[in-house]
Amino acid sequence: MGQKSHHYDGAMARWEPGARERLVLAAVDLCTEQGYDATTVAQIAERAGVTKSTFFRHFPDKRELLVAGQETLRQLLIEGIAEAPEGASPLTAVAAGLVRASSVMGPVNRELAPRLKAAVAASTELQERDALKIVSLAAAMTDALVARGVPQAIAALAAELGVLAFKRGFAEWSEGDRDTEDELAGYVLAALDELRTATASLG
Amino acid sequence: MGQKSHHYDGAMARWEPGARERLVLAAVDLCTEQGYDATTVAQIAERAGVTKSTFFRHFPDKRELLVAGQETLRQLLIEGIAEAPEGASPLTAVAAGLVRASSVMGPVNRELAPRLKAAVAASTELQERDALKIVSLAAAMTDALVARGVPQAIAALAAELGVLAFKRGFAEWSEGDRDTEDELAGYVLAALDELRTATASLG
Repeated sequence: MGQKSHHYDGAMARWEPGARERLVLAAVDLCTEQGYDATTVAQIAERAGVTKSTFFRHFPDKRELLVAGQETLRQLLIEGIAEAPEGASPLTAVAAGLVRASSVMGPVNRELAPRLKAAVAASTELQERDALKIVSLAAAMTDALVARGVPQAIAALAAELGVLAFKRGFAEWSEGDRDTEDELAGYVLAALDELRTATASLG
Repeated sequence: MGQKSHHYDGAMARWEPGARERLVLAAVDLCTEQGYDATTVAQIAERAGVTKSTFFRHFPDKRELLVAGQETLRQLLIEGIAEAPEGASPLTAVAAGLVRASSVMGPVNRELAPRLKAAVAASTELQERDALKIVSLAAAMTDALVARGVPQAIAALAAELGVLAFKRGFAEWSEGDRDTEDELAGYVLAALDELRTATASLG
């Protein structure tokens, strides 16, 4: 301990994050400062002002910490797709999943995104982890569409459009003007519309 | 040494593989037998009948060995897209890249595919590596299309269709009747056509 200024008291006042959020903030900052490989679980816990046991109650390891939240996204995407109205087209169902997943992304995510992106860019290990999570999001969306009776090829394609739209929308949202209170969903749906239009120009 | 029966003499007679191919065969078999984590570079080299130095002349580590070839694919995809006729549509350019990449996939790849798939399925580490390679193939195809003047959203979408088509075509080819001498390209182009048709049903 003894690094009081690093304990995110200011951030706590603004966001009132719990231990989980403090751990994510601490990990992202440490990885940005000294690199992913040099950052240990002990350092992350110390910086966040919690014990190592608390760390391990929230995350199995440091790698999982940095891609946490994607399991939540997966569940929300699937639920949104499954609960879309019966006659909804594949892309309309995907849009419903994207809106639901976007709803959990708030100011903390927007604030953290550039630092998280930098941490991932600097570590092949994190890039690999991230890539597999994205592949599994696409697979989960495909399965959810197939469960609605969408043929496999159409389901796979709609899911890829959904993943691309989420990635593009999220990038624009997190790089955009953070003083506005834009919600992520608007960016993601705009990206999905752009991709839907693009399908007409594939040749 | 002393495991003469494992040295793929039969395979050598059929395929005449060099050290590189023997190393891949040995690694896939060892990973299937005893798991990825338990398999060492020393064991792979011994099974292939080469020294560890020879291993390291071909691959930086065991993980790289199992996803080797994807760099070759990347280069061929890019070349095929870059060299497509000037007026070619985005998907026609992608098809040209896919045909060129498919041309290097022969009987050895087809034979190995199910075992390689099993080895990857059993290892999260390999799945992560594989996922990142696929993401980077999509990014490379996107860049190659943008370099042809294709707008970014259309390029990203065409590249995703290309990746999906290659994965689907490859799976069908490698699971299909290996007594026939079907070429991979036919499977991949059929999958691309199916996906192109599917774009009309996204809603």
